Amino acid sequence: MTVEGKLRAAIVGSTGYGGVELIRLLQNHPDIEVTSVISSSSAGEPIENGFPHLTGIIQRNLDGVDPAEIAGRADVVFTATPSGVSAKLVPQLLEAGLKVVDLSGDFRLKDGAEYEQWYKHPAPPQAYLEQAVYGLCEVFGERAAGVDFISNPGCYPTATLLGLIPALKAGWIKHDSIIIDAKSGVSGAGRGTSLMVHFAEINENLKAYKINKHQHIPEIEQVLTEIAGEKVTVTFTTHLVPMNRGIMSTMYAGMNGNYSEQDFVELYREYYEGRPFVRVRGAGVVPATKEVSGSNYCDIGFATDARTGRVTIVSVIDNIVKGAAGQAIQNLNLMMGWEETRGLGYTPVYP
Amino acid sequence: MTVEGKLRAAIVGSTGYGGVELIRLLQNHPDIEVTSVISSSSAGEPIENGFPHLTGIIQRNLDGVDPAEIAGRADVVFTATPSGVSAKLVPQLLEAGLKVVDLSGDFRLKDGAEYEQWYKHPAPPQAYLEQAVYGLCEVFGERAAGVDFISNPGCYPTATLLGLIPALKAGWIKHDSIIIDAKSGVSGAGRGTSLMVHFAEINENLKAYKINKHQHIPEIEQVLTEIAGEKVTVTFTTHLVPMNRGIMSTMYAGMNGNYSEQDFVELYREYYEGRPFVRVRGAGVVPATKEVSGSNYCDIGFATDARTGRVTIVSVIDNIVKGAAGQAIQNLNLMMGWEETRGLGYTPVYP
Amino acid sequence: MTVEGKLRAAIVGSTGYGGVELIRLLQNHPDIEVTSVISSSSAGEPIENGFPHLTGIIQRNLDGVDPAEIAGRADVVFTATPSGVSAKLVPQLLEAGLKVVDLSGDFRLKDGAEYEQWYKHPAPPQAYLEQAVYGLCEVFGERAAGVDFISNPGCYPTATLLGLIPALKAGWIKHDSIIIDAKSGVSGAGRGTSLMVHFAEINENLKAYKINKHQHIPEIEQVLTEIAGEKVTVTFTTHLVPMNRGIMSTMYAGMNGNYSEQDFVELYREYYEGRPFVRVRGAGVVPATKEVSGSNYCDIGFATDARTGRVTIVSVIDNIVKGAAGQAIQNLNLMMGWEETRGLGYTPVYP
Amino acid sequence: MTVEGKLRAAIVGSTGYGGVELIRLLQNHPDIEVTSVISSSSAGEPIENGFPHLTGIIQRNLDGVDPAEIAGRADVVFTATPSGVSAKLVPQLLEAGLKVVDLSGDFRLKDGAEYEQWYKHPAPPQAYLEQAVYGLCEVFGERAAGVDFISNPGCYPTATLLGLIPALKAGWIKHDSIIIDAKSGVSGAGRGTSLMVHFAEINENLKAYKINKHQHIPEIEQVLTEIAGEKVTVTFTTHLVPMNRGIMSTMYAGMNGNYSEQDFVELYREYYEGRPFVRVRGAGVVPATKEVSGSNYCDIGFATDARTGRVTIVSVIDNIVKGAAGQAIQNLNLMMGWEETRGLGYTPVYP
Repeated sequence: MTVEGKLRAAIVGSTGYGGVELIRLLQNHPDIEVTSVISSSSAGEPIENGFPHLTGIIQRNLDGVDPAEIAGRADVVFTATPSGVSAKLVPQLLEAGLKVVDLSGDFRLKDGAEYEQWYKHPAPPQAYLEQAVYGLCEVFGERAAGVDFISNPGCYPTATLLGLIPALKAGWIKHDSIIIDAKSGVSGAGRGTSLMVHFAEINENLKAYKINKHQHIPEIEQVLTEIAGEKVTVTFTTHLVPMNRGIMSTMYAGMNGNYSEQDFVELYREYYEGRPFVRVRGAGVVPATKEVSGSNYCDIGFATDARTGRVTIVSVIDNIVKGAAGQAIQNLNLMMGWEETRGLGYTPVYP
Repeated sequence: MTVEGKLRAAIVGSTGYGGVELIRLLQNHPDIEVTSVISSSSAGEPIENGFPHLTGIIQRNLDGVDPAEIAGRADVVFTATPSGVSAKLVPQLLEAGLKVVDLSGDFRLKDGAEYEQWYKHPAPPQAYLEQAVYGLCEVFGERAAGVDFISNPGCYPTATLLGLIPALKAGWIKHDSIIIDAKSGVSGAGRGTSLMVHFAEINENLKAYKINKHQHIPEIEQVLTEIAGEKVTVTFTTHLVPMNRGIMSTMYAGMNGNYSEQDFVELYREYYEGRPFVRVRGAGVVPATKEVSGSNYCDIGFATDARTGRVTIVSVIDNIVKGAAGQAIQNLNLMMGWEETRGLGYTPVYP
Repeated sequence: MTVEGKLRAAIVGSTGYGGVELIRLLQNHPDIEVTSVISSSSAGEPIENGFPHLTGIIQRNLDGVDPAEIAGRADVVFTATPSGVSAKLVPQLLEAGLKVVDLSGDFRLKDGAEYEQWYKHPAPPQAYLEQAVYGLCEVFGERAAGVDFISNPGCYPTATLLGLIPALKAGWIKHDSIIIDAKSGVSGAGRGTSLMVHFAEINENLKAYKINKHQHIPEIEQVLTEIAGEKVTVTFTTHLVPMNRGIMSTMYAGMNGNYSEQDFVELYREYYEGRPFVRVRGAGVVPATKEVSGSNYCDIGFATDARTGRVTIVSVIDNIVKGAAGQAIQNLNLMMGWEETRGLGYTPVYP
Repeated sequence: MTVEGKLRAAIVGSTGYGGVELIRLLQNHPDIEVTSVISSSSAGEPIENGFPHLTGIIQRNLDGVDPAEIAGRADVVFTATPSGVSAKLVPQLLEAGLKVVDLSGDFRLKDGAEYEQWYKHPAPPQAYLEQAVYGLCEVFGERAAGVDFISNPGCYPTATLLGLIPALKAGWIKHDSIIIDAKSGVSGAGRGTSLMVHFAEINENLKAYKINKHQHIPEIEQVLTEIAGEKVTVTFTTHLVPMNRGIMSTMYAGMNGNYSEQDFVELYREYYEGRPFVRVRGAGVVPATKEVSGSNYCDIGFATDARTGRVTIVSVIDNIVKGAAGQAIQNLNLMMGWEETRGLGYTPVYP
């Protein structure tokens, strides 16, 4: 099952930002060997043609997408594919006996009808939606142990859910009061070309987009509803910030009591005890996105306000690491029963 | 009173970003002549030493701060000075018979005790706080006609208040539900040096700061309270975005009815009819900051959400123009009985 | 010939950055009225659909490209079209009796064979190549008076030629020693989408491109050769800098004597006397691109080096203004016999 | 001599960008343990106060600068101190029996008089200038084996020298024709505050500075002179680019023959054979700075021009890694007789 004792991994979608970040991060994983980098659009070409930064690091031609061939070359597949593609591909990979960590959004929603409403594609077969374990590691990590199929959380949901769940679970915030003002760097839009990601249109600019229409909304609500034990509906806005990496969710909620910042710090530190990738900042301190850049951390801080009875929660991640490739590897670590930090000891790159 | 029929203007604080923007904008004002550029720190030096972009445009040495001398050279003074400085200087300028448009925050709050609580300086004398007309042009423009002293609104309050007032006045939003998530470019922090504005700390980074502690909060609440007729308290967060210019206020409020985006568009277009610097976007469209950059526009758009009963209002300005120098000139136009657009016909610079 | 005494202008290519900058700049021209904005790709749509910053400023649907119709609506046409398109369109516009300022590169080279070698398109008819006046205003301005057809210089050639010509003409620099290291903001690449202009690929990055292969090389050499009176060949490198606007040409040449920086300052100030858009900086001072941003200035500075016998000349422009739309208007002013600064009194936008 | 078999390292200047990058990179070095982080300005404070990205990664208070104490805690010291400070400190550290890798420029020039001319400080004692081994690893790596004191090359010299030396050594380029147009990200200016590094002054801007006056000039010339066997003098310009990390040296030289790009590729690949941190690109390809960001690579590409007989060489590094902290670790590896890549297996962070 392994190459020289290592787990063999294939990456589908190796020419997107999520795929290429998997390659970067897996270079230093002691137990995983990347044995196939796969791209439907550029099969046959050396990967360094499109990503010269990999020159001399991974000398390999891109493979095509063929489940049977993949099964011959790999034990696990990361599918960093566009939504709609994974829906069709993942069942074939699972049938071929592969483990799968899916980075698309196709298997995150348990309700196929809801998927079709927000994603505008046909949903994957219900059996696979049910099989998929939603891999928000610090919350549902124990569900990942030993399974074959993980649906990796979205970037916005990761930052948002890690920032909200302890307070929601503790009953400290009002379920119907949650407002999420999220901001992302541009790599989150993918490597496809469009006027929306043209440098001159983004630089020196700040845009809001998809207000209350983003497909990450039902994903967030599905988890919050499970935690709260009743239907939770949120207001959710996304903004595009002129930077490459980073997501910040600034979250607002009415408090059910007179909690201080220190109370929140203690609640969250207790909740995340033993989970090294969540760093709860001290009272009065909120994190900036650069403080986690290039790493798998999610940093969280709080500001409570006695004047309004609200708490403001700030949660930041690197959208391509903790929001995609890093958490996918963390999930594989949990699937395999390894330490969740294995191969992910990246200090944030600062500045 | 005029040089060749023009009003003579002095600018105190000419070596800050607000002051130097006043110089840029006033170059094309047909009725105003800048007769003195003033800086306490660099008096005697040519202004182009610190601002080489003004080479050949304004060849003038910086003057010192002496109210009697200013009165001999100018009819009106723009005080683009730090908070605390204007508190002492403006009364002297008014005593010397000058008209004043003050760009500091020193005369915006009517309650001296509240000023001292948020600004941590001694308040100016109460008589001057009362004399100052709060110059939010599109809302209180008629109060400016003929007066001698305008307190120019802050940058965040300008974007925020123009975005909230029509809905609040119409009774469409709940007074106790207002949450303001504001984002600013770095020029808003001024030209002083600090680690906070170091390029390498800001670039590729997004920070929240002064959550619920920003001195613009009481300014916003003072006006909203007046409009609402009862005390309004807001939740207010500011963020620093890696760009030079631009403010976006993303604002959330619970609605008192089932209003559509088109309803909001019509309400706001009616409210701002005849005020060309506010551009209300069509239903489903929200503005980006670059779309007003370099100009005196405030652009506003809406997203309503039947699922949550909330409206999201997005309001953008150029923080140095509509949020400072441009609105100051607009106020002077109103003071003088001129068209408010006079000398302010700047098309946004795009890209 | 005019609307209310104004010259009527049409802009072909109104949905590119050059075209939309013409619209911005012409808003404040006292003698020109934009009567048609033209786009082959978006005809029929309101221009503000693609450029919301123009909302309320120019309310006009885009027209199609029809020379006869244009002749009915306009007196002069700015063709801000891709290379290859102007080659075919401009002769038709001239035949229709219109004045033309062409912003493409199609009519800059006098030698059709050289055009085809560098541009890889068929050259326009030789008669039109000969008719076109190369509109480098501060050097050949007198040739523009009264003509019907100007070929507007390229962005790199404008910064480069204005920086080299006085020294070359004076015989101070060796003809065979000229090396030009040029850097541009991304708007110079146009508004078309491609991986090359994807925000995440440009931001936090610096690239060299088209080394010794850029189509502006023969344009630069053609003019330098005319000035020098013998064939001049240059080494020319272009770089893409993560900013929207601005070109800097850093130029190196061996000196024919022991000239000081002050000598260069005096030589250039004498050469450009009476040409307000060229600002020659004092000895020891070189300009930065932001110091001309949004304006029609070209700023030039010098560093001489006795150790190597070389001079380093730094020349900066805003690539969309002096490098395109601004110089095009300046050329029209010269064609019409107006002051060359007419309608171009823009102070640089700083910061 | 070691902590659990590891070499103990102290970092002086831990609150600068070079020092904090040493901390990041050393986290993953299998044979080194950071036992002291030292700062004269912030001694006693937790390092995460100034660098929150290190929260939970290195929990340690900053130590003061005391050579005797350092000798008790460490085996090797990295001095990432300002020029002038190392001149005094390093001799004390060496006397105390420590190994030293000095990242300041104080020990790079062999001639004290030349040091004083360019650095404007008193030179260190001549004995130490002579003792210092100039650690340009891929060129002088064999000199580092077993020594106690390395002077780490400057950022600009590293990119420049690695790009020039093989051609110079082979006699392919004219010694008196070398022109270096260098560009750097802003982290190279250090973490100190000044108007020069204010975000709003750098963003959307490109500046040239210290033309022919940069203190890295004599360092470059000293090495080129040694390689060439006769005095080499260069023209050298530095530019500040609106990005955090990255240096590009674009270098121009007259060729002594009719060499092709492929000739250069082969010459350089042969010269750098067995040195994995230099990646020579294929013919016709030049590297961009992002392609080495966060890593210890130096990538080099070529463009030759038969028209002018010149070659253009493009060399890029991450200024804080290969230009400072990374090469310092590489030097320590060589001093200790370890593989030079040990602990430096960082894939570039892209995008």
